Amino acid sequence: MQPVMTIDEVHRFLETDFPQIHTDGRVMTVTDISSGHVSMRLDPTDRHLRPGGTVSGPALFALADVTAYVAVIVHIGPVALAVTTSLNINFLRLPQLKPTTCTCRILKLGKRLAVIEAAIFQDDPDALVAHATATYSIPPR
Amino acid sequence: MQPVMTIDEVHRFLETDFPQIHTDGRVMTVTDISSGHVSMRLDPTDRHLRPGGTVSGPALFALADVTAYVAVIVHIGPVALAVTTSLNINFLRLPQLKPTTCTCRILKLGKRLAVIEAAIFQDDPDALVAHATATYSIPPR
Amino acid sequence: MQPVMTIDEVHRFLETDFPQIHTDGRVMTVTDISSGHVSMRLDPTDRHLRPGGTVSGPALFALADVTAYVAVIVHIGPVALAVTTSLNINFLRLPQLKPTTCTCRILKLGKRLAVIEAAIFQDDPDALVAHATATYSIPPR
Amino acid sequence: MQPVMTIDEVHRFLETDFPQIHTDGRVMTVTDISSGHVSMRLDPTDRHLRPGGTVSGPALFALADVTAYVAVIVHIGPVALAVTTSLNINFLRLPQLKPTTCTCRILKLGKRLAVIEAAIFQDDPDALVAHATATYSIPPR
Repeated sequence: MQPVMTIDEVHRFLETDFPQIHTDGRVMTVTDISSGHVSMRLDPTDRHLRPGGTVSGPALFALADVTAYVAVIVHIGPVALAVTTSLNINFLRLPQLKPTTCTCRILKLGKRLAVIEAAIFQDDPDALVAHATATYSIPPR
Repeated sequence: MQPVMTIDEVHRFLETDFPQIHTDGRVMTVTDISSGHVSMRLDPTDRHLRPGGTVSGPALFALADVTAYVAVIVHIGPVALAVTTSLNINFLRLPQLKPTTCTCRILKLGKRLAVIEAAIFQDDPDALVAHATATYSIPPR
Repeated sequence: MQPVMTIDEVHRFLETDFPQIHTDGRVMTVTDISSGHVSMRLDPTDRHLRPGGTVSGPALFALADVTAYVAVIVHIGPVALAVTTSLNINFLRLPQLKPTTCTCRILKLGKRLAVIEAAIFQDDPDALVAHATATYSIPPR
Repeated sequence: MQPVMTIDEVHRFLETDFPQIHTDGRVMTVTDISSGHVSMRLDPTDRHLRPGGTVSGPALFALADVTAYVAVIVHIGPVALAVTTSLNINFLRLPQLKPTTCTCRILKLGKRLAVIEAAIFQDDPDALVAHATATYSIPPR
């Protein structure tokens, strides 16, 4: 399972094919790509806040969903249109308003389905703020 | 299991205690409350779109999460602070850019946990665009 | 979405193609088939018990999985080999050692994936003991 | 997060308090305990088979559930009665009839809830046959 896209190629692809994720500014950045893995960073703004100064559930969901999507296209190429079919997320600790990392690992990359695990943390990779598992449908190639 | 809040009371509570859900305008409205059930409507805008003109996954997630949260507070009262502990969502059909309804049913309202089912559809309640199950932690009362 | 198999046909199919579900005796029976829906009944035995006299989680999982699988084949025909790709289950109330019903509703029957909701209860259909959502991969036909 | 039970203590506890998991013989064994982690091995028998010679979904579910339960009691002690509140499982590859390992990692051990990740594999820890996330309710201590 080898990556077929670089960080720069992913950023250009998101820019042209997926501009919606930048509606609120460039808050999500790919930070690392390796075999079967992709990491992204969210720099949350006031818009991602919830009462108590915590990052909102939908913001964490979006981070997990985009990172898992990028993990898929990084390994199958930017042409294919992968669609999220399901996502299960556990919220583990209240995140603070600071940079948030999502590290995705591909559990399975089949012909029709990809299953990805996403671990979201802030300072300490062992103290996850959320953990998700997502499934993507891969169109016939 | 009887509701203890009216639609107007919920709207006022969200206005004062949860203003973040209105960051992008008043796109979510409570449309119905009954024993064990709450419905809300999302009027999506361009900001909720994804390539292909479909409503984004995070927008559907946020709709399910807010509606389920409202279903909890409508039945336990607005004081308690319920926190989402997990949410599992299946994306079933591509939604179009039009009003989207989420109907929640409380499956369990325990002392410590509430479990809620959410069905999201557009015109046809039998052709769901998404289906979710969410768990909320209820603080000691 | 019309059923293409009767209860008797399902029982014969399970008997010949899926004898493993009867390893512990004939504990699962199809009780109802209608458009988009299938119900089955589990008559639990001592083997399904857990400490406290409750029906075990794996027994409820198996009931949800088999009923959802039957819901799929009842609507696509017994030839196709559907495989569970994921199952999310919430345990809501402790079940007692008595007949347990699982009612499945097909949320989506696509070309490649079927998504099914399963509600498990004993006496009162409004007091679920468990609720599940399952996804099945449908082989090319 | 330090383990407070040894492998032998867990086996004795299961023997006396949870004899049901041995109904079909001693097919599940704890193989490893460390900080935040527990591994168990299932030696499947004919009873765990499905058509095609694969280990059944309910057998994998039971393995994930028991291992996650053991991970909880190993860290909070054998007195507390933890109950599974939800379990989400993805089936990734068809397992064969041979020894199957489940490695659990505690993602969160809170006062009221524990969240555990379970990875199930046969020969190759990087080629998972199933992956699960489970939540346990911890009784007041």
